[in-house]
Amino acid sequence: MGGARLVDVAREAGVTVGTVSRALNPTTRSRVNTDTAARIMGIAERLGYEVNIAGRALRTQRSQTVGALIPDLTNPLFPRIVRGVEDSLERAGYTALITSTENDPQRERRMITALRNRQVDGFLIASARMNDPALQEIIEEGVPVVVLNRTSANALTSAVIADDQQGIADVMAHLITLGHTHIAHVAGPADTSTGRVRLESFEAALDRYGLQRRPELIVQADGYSIEAGIRCTRELLKRGKAFTAVVAGNDLLALGVLDTLKENRIPCPERVSVVGFNDIDFAARMSPSLTTVHVPTYELGARGAELLLDMIYRDRKVSTITLPVTLMIRESTAPPPPPGAGLFGL
Amino acid sequence: MGGARLVDVAREAGVTVGTVSRALNPTTRSRVNTDTAARIMGIAERLGYEVNIAGRALRTQRSQTVGALIPDLTNPLFPRIVRGVEDSLERAGYTALITSTENDPQRERRMITALRNRQVDGFLIASARMNDPALQEIIEEGVPVVVLNRTSANALTSAVIADDQQGIADVMAHLITLGHTHIAHVAGPADTSTGRVRLESFEAALDRYGLQRRPELIVQADGYSIEAGIRCTRELLKRGKAFTAVVAGNDLLALGVLDTLKENRIPCPERVSVVGFNDIDFAARMSPSLTTVHVPTYELGARGAELLLDMIYRDRKVSTITLPVTLMIRESTAPPPPPGAGLFGL
Repeated sequence: MGGARLVDVAREAGVTVGTVSRALNPTTRSRVNTDTAARIMGIAERLGYEVNIAGRALRTQRSQTVGALIPDLTNPLFPRIVRGVEDSLERAGYTALITSTENDPQRERRMITALRNRQVDGFLIASARMNDPALQEIIEEGVPVVVLNRTSANALTSAVIADDQQGIADVMAHLITLGHTHIAHVAGPADTSTGRVRLESFEAALDRYGLQRRPELIVQADGYSIEAGIRCTRELLKRGKAFTAVVAGNDLLALGVLDTLKENRIPCPERVSVVGFNDIDFAARMSPSLTTVHVPTYELGARGAELLLDMIYRDRKVSTITLPVTLMIRESTAPPPPPGAGLFGL
Repeated sequence: MGGARLVDVAREAGVTVGTVSRALNPTTRSRVNTDTAARIMGIAERLGYEVNIAGRALRTQRSQTVGALIPDLTNPLFPRIVRGVEDSLERAGYTALITSTENDPQRERRMITALRNRQVDGFLIASARMNDPALQEIIEEGVPVVVLNRTSANALTSAVIADDQQGIADVMAHLITLGHTHIAHVAGPADTSTGRVRLESFEAALDRYGLQRRPELIVQADGYSIEAGIRCTRELLKRGKAFTAVVAGNDLLALGVLDTLKENRIPCPERVSVVGFNDIDFAARMSPSLTTVHVPTYELGARGAELLLDMIYRDRKVSTITLPVTLMIRESTAPPPPPGAGLFGL
């Protein structure tokens, strides 16, 4: 009835699954202590490990597939990244198996397990959170992983990200040059690197230009969605503090800001300017068209896939690639209204 | 070194892989001739079939995963369908492995093979073409398949589709009530059911209202993309025949129509009205907001997944579910311009 699984060998040997996997794979065996490797190979043979599903992967060495975890496919940012991933993989004869985690850490963990059971050679993870135990585990086990768009707190994570810092610096320079001094921020989730870095860059820019930090003008979203943007903007308006511009943590949050302004008959950009981040496919077609930071999403996916293939084939070291971004100035930003015409008597 | 693969057993037995699979699976064995089943089981045992990857699937009966083939994830139609699929599957403890075929039949075939090798229990296929040999094959082999959004010419295909006919009938009633008589059609690809049915419904409506069919006002797109919409509209303008409205095969084609009208300084809706199909996520936010046919995409995915699970678990018969659609009237349609003010002297 078939043999043991990788985990059975690991349990018997008292080592991690990653160590067993490395010990049994001729191309990675040198990374395991020689005695340990010999012991693991003995146990694997005794337990009849080879006959099982992973044994087949070992025989053929690689499955030519990678798992791709996307937090939310309905955010137009991600399909574009996936397109880049698929084009790069295809050139190498690889296929991506994509799953969407719906921003749910439990679901992310289940998906990682499901994909590992299907012997993927590595992972591209666009759903990473700062503190991500499931990600941490597979990295520790030596599974090749590249995180996309976001980083994690784990220093051993390879990543391809956009230059969030530069993006927000450009946004702030644009707004401040237009004359804005009371700028609100609808920040992305605090457990994502993008949410955190963009908020820090926002505050750093205020300091740099000698503008006052106003905690009452910062609201934190619990997710990257239009709905979260609506909730945050309602909260911001409820506080009744004057502002003439909103920097949103991403484009979907910015759409939520625009919806809420419209619902309150506050014209954009005449009374309040709005800026997004990412430049999703339809940002230029919106009414008003959205000023935002263009992220080279296709390239981000393509470079991520190349980096992962390098890790799979050449045992490449951990590295982070940061891609340059471009501010796209469109209709949603303008000079602030004349004194007295701003929100809340500004 | 492991045993035979399913295909080896099939070759030796002189039957299809599907027959072998059904014969070896206790829950489906009754669908195979008793003598054939016995012979296949004998060959499988002799060749040591059980020890291989598919043997594991047989032992656990099901992999709890299905493959989902999407023609183009960057079309906002599909992520919404995928969301419905994932929610339905999740309730049943299932996972979707998603791949994008990039509208490439070769790629579709490779993806189907890759996913079958990973023992998916069935397929959801949104990339179906009218004549689709890869789809035909897996249906003949008895693999559970549901096609989404599009049907194929194969009568044995289960499908969940939108009511394309009713959608176009509603669009035509709207335009003709507004006063349009010279209506162009940028038709979707002829090798998709959506392209074909919408074109037929367009012509049927002209007949019904006693309007002349004008072949010079019909252009056929080679894909569902903004770029294809641009190419078609340029071709239409080059022909120099009068029209005051364009029915596009889907929303992306409609965006291409809008881009080309703008590039030629033809205002929409003042001189030409434009209608799309699908009501993609951002259609209401476009400038002008797009009149289009709303397809319940989330429900389409959810019902498709439920139908597939039914086929996997209860051996359900082939069936087609048609979901109702709703015309969304927005800014991109208006009465035709006064006589003499239309395009090409209409």
